[in-house]
Amino acid sequence: MNFKTLKEQAYEANMEIPTQHLAIYTFGNVSAIDRQAGVMAIKPSGVPYAQLKVEDMVLVDLDNEVVEGRFRPSSDTKTHTLLYRHFASIGGICHTHSTYAVAWAQALLPIPNLGTTHADHLIPAVPITEVMSDEMIQGDYEHETGLQILQAFEKQNLSPQEVEMVLVACHGPFTWGKDAAKAVYNAGVLEELAKMAYLTRQLNPSIGEIKQSLKDKHFLRKHGTGAYYGQEGYGG
Amino acid sequence: MNFKTLKEQAYEANMEIPTQHLAIYTFGNVSAIDRQAGVMAIKPSGVPYAQLKVEDMVLVDLDNEVVEGRFRPSSDTKTHTLLYRHFASIGGICHTHSTYAVAWAQALLPIPNLGTTHADHLIPAVPITEVMSDEMIQGDYEHETGLQILQAFEKQNLSPQEVEMVLVACHGPFTWGKDAAKAVYNAGVLEELAKMAYLTRQLNPSIGEIKQSLKDKHFLRKHGTGAYYGQEGYGG
Amino acid sequence: MNFKTLKEQAYEANMEIPTQHLAIYTFGNVSAIDRQAGVMAIKPSGVPYAQLKVEDMVLVDLDNEVVEGRFRPSSDTKTHTLLYRHFASIGGICHTHSTYAVAWAQALLPIPNLGTTHADHLIPAVPITEVMSDEMIQGDYEHETGLQILQAFEKQNLSPQEVEMVLVACHGPFTWGKDAAKAVYNAGVLEELAKMAYLTRQLNPSIGEIKQSLKDKHFLRKHGTGAYYGQEGYGG
Amino acid sequence: MNFKTLKEQAYEANMEIPTQHLAIYTFGNVSAIDRQAGVMAIKPSGVPYAQLKVEDMVLVDLDNEVVEGRFRPSSDTKTHTLLYRHFASIGGICHTHSTYAVAWAQALLPIPNLGTTHADHLIPAVPITEVMSDEMIQGDYEHETGLQILQAFEKQNLSPQEVEMVLVACHGPFTWGKDAAKAVYNAGVLEELAKMAYLTRQLNPSIGEIKQSLKDKHFLRKHGTGAYYGQEGYGG
Repeated sequence: MNFKTLKEQAYEANMEIPTQHLAIYTFGNVSAIDRQAGVMAIKPSGVPYAQLKVEDMVLVDLDNEVVEGRFRPSSDTKTHTLLYRHFASIGGICHTHSTYAVAWAQALLPIPNLGTTHADHLIPAVPITEVMSDEMIQGDYEHETGLQILQAFEKQNLSPQEVEMVLVACHGPFTWGKDAAKAVYNAGVLEELAKMAYLTRQLNPSIGEIKQSLKDKHFLRKHGTGAYYGQEGYGG
Repeated sequence: MNFKTLKEQAYEANMEIPTQHLAIYTFGNVSAIDRQAGVMAIKPSGVPYAQLKVEDMVLVDLDNEVVEGRFRPSSDTKTHTLLYRHFASIGGICHTHSTYAVAWAQALLPIPNLGTTHADHLIPAVPITEVMSDEMIQGDYEHETGLQILQAFEKQNLSPQEVEMVLVACHGPFTWGKDAAKAVYNAGVLEELAKMAYLTRQLNPSIGEIKQSLKDKHFLRKHGTGAYYGQEGYGG
Repeated sequence: MNFKTLKEQAYEANMEIPTQHLAIYTFGNVSAIDRQAGVMAIKPSGVPYAQLKVEDMVLVDLDNEVVEGRFRPSSDTKTHTLLYRHFASIGGICHTHSTYAVAWAQALLPIPNLGTTHADHLIPAVPITEVMSDEMIQGDYEHETGLQILQAFEKQNLSPQEVEMVLVACHGPFTWGKDAAKAVYNAGVLEELAKMAYLTRQLNPSIGEIKQSLKDKHFLRKHGTGAYYGQEGYGG
Repeated sequence: MNFKTLKEQAYEANMEIPTQHLAIYTFGNVSAIDRQAGVMAIKPSGVPYAQLKVEDMVLVDLDNEVVEGRFRPSSDTKTHTLLYRHFASIGGICHTHSTYAVAWAQALLPIPNLGTTHADHLIPAVPITEVMSDEMIQGDYEHETGLQILQAFEKQNLSPQEVEMVLVACHGPFTWGKDAAKAVYNAGVLEELAKMAYLTRQLNPSIGEIKQSLKDKHFLRKHGTGAYYGQEGYGG
């Protein structure tokens, strides 16, 4: 079994975090999963991006057991594995502390859909979890963080294929996608949406969401069978 | 017929979008037109700037037919061609999702003329279109986007030679100029005006537009027969 | 008579404008004066920084006559010469359109002295001129701009040696100093003070200026005979 | 006695100030201490970072006497030595004028703990000192600045090992840590916390601090005997 490609994908995606200015120092982490093997490659905990190497990626199975690696995996490992177990279609997960997304998470507010940049990527507001109870926090915290995300999607009847991002209340964003590259791409999109929505509400506090028809139009330009944005077989 | 120069002009102008931080990833697009041939070169849809090459530019005629190119053209193609058909003097068009300009577009507010940086480039507020009806959105959407721009200029009696920028409500900016380089230059100017006006209104929410005499003075320093800014035959 | 050094000083100082992000494209200009010759070197009008060369600097005397240069001088030339004629101690002048300083100028507000970063450089608020009358604007505009600056200093009894910066209402900042390098340094300081004061007032709209004793302490640490900041004969 | 390593540590940490955009020009300074020798290496006063060299670091003892160095030490030297004398566990101190941290200091507000990015680094709000009296300012000012910091920690019963940062009212941040590298790392963290808290309060002015259980959870993930973030013997 050769996980070299998986580790490379995880490494490349992790390095996008500082490149796109989505977190400082050691903050944030990305994982990539090999669904057949049931193994993910994830950033080691607390290693600065400037020192990170492909071989530092830690291999962990979906029971949170380290399969290979000289480093301890990200402290958020259990959140990643829970999401992989429940969101069967996803191939990569990204967690950042990007500034504007964190601000919305700390303000305990979902990010409203105020324009077509948002609608190009998702139709609803970026959802936000409930604030965790003391019991959850003092219990299996990172596992509970994942459960909060699942609960937010269930309560609002959201699909993880149509909504690839969430804010964990008081904390910050998690994003995902078909692979690790798409997961971190979504983290960059989310930060931009968060900044645009921040500025819009400062300019006009009473502005509401855009109309349903416009949301649908932009989302379906880029997603699904009628999509006509981008190139076939070209990502995007 | 040789469109090499046209494609190069379009390519160079498109690459200014990431260089000037006017959009992230694949967002935004610039086109350049050869008026004699009735053909424009435009960015292919959904291709990241880092991978873009001169030969990727797609040639499209003013009936929206692809003349040459292995890629699908920008999904905003019909907005470009409509503007070229109605604004006879322009040679390039740029569309970005620059952050502050999008914020004003999402806030459904024109950008007021609050100072000489604005007046150096245009006299009126940066106009904003009406919000589109459901019928327009569900119809020939990108064509309707162009019609909304034309209508905004007609209603406010604006000249596309004197006002080279507009905000599409709920969406973002379109800018243009005598060539593609000037179109993307105007996108950079617009983003700066949008940020300055944002900060000004945060500092002093009741501030109004500057006086007509100051608008005229600065605009006419740079434009028209009495202009004394810049160098003759030197752009700017 | 050899103005090579003067042109180099002006060029180096002009290139600090894009390096320190104090203006985009062709905006802004710096001049350096040779007091003995009564000649200043100033940026040519409308030339982008990326294309600017030492030999492009235009030599102009204090009667606004071009002494040497194949380009037209900055359109703000008459403001520079007026300030040189009245502020006998200064050796360089800088004009930018830096974003936060412009926002205060557009908001028609002086920048209050809210902390020691400000007091390290000047004791009073950064002054702002009156809004010009229609007659002034339609008259000898750039000369009148200079007169407005002189009037603001006279009315508030300010010394151009102790206060090396001003906001022109509806327009933006002018700064100066013993040489061109110091003038553009002051433009960078002013932009930082403008941003800090903006954020402070957003956090706490009712905050007032710091006490006189703290203003005096910080200013006199760096200026005058009792100064103990920096190194002797080392700029500052 | 060889202070080469100490000077190198101080130099490297000082150079992080411009690299992490924590101050412009000559603003800010870092020191590193050799506890056995009772000597610290500190940035010389008023020297721009671009010109700074390892051998420019000034060696000063804890009685503020220069031990070695051709330059005058930072004007904030007495604040550093006072903190070293009273905070026995620290090995480095950093002072910056980072923009958002200064804004909170100028607004006379502590930075509330609004999320897990904050709690990862400290449990309480970032404390702020009292405004100094005229007597303190006109007296031994930099020594009094240190006393204000000590008093703030005493009054709020804070430990300099658990809280490695403070805002000096009307001025800006001081941070520290086990060595100079950690001190300037904390300055970068503080600036990010200051920006996140600013944005959060703009979005939701009534938001309060996060619950105690969440503060404890995140802080103890990274600090103390039960910590499971990062790698053993790996910093961070």
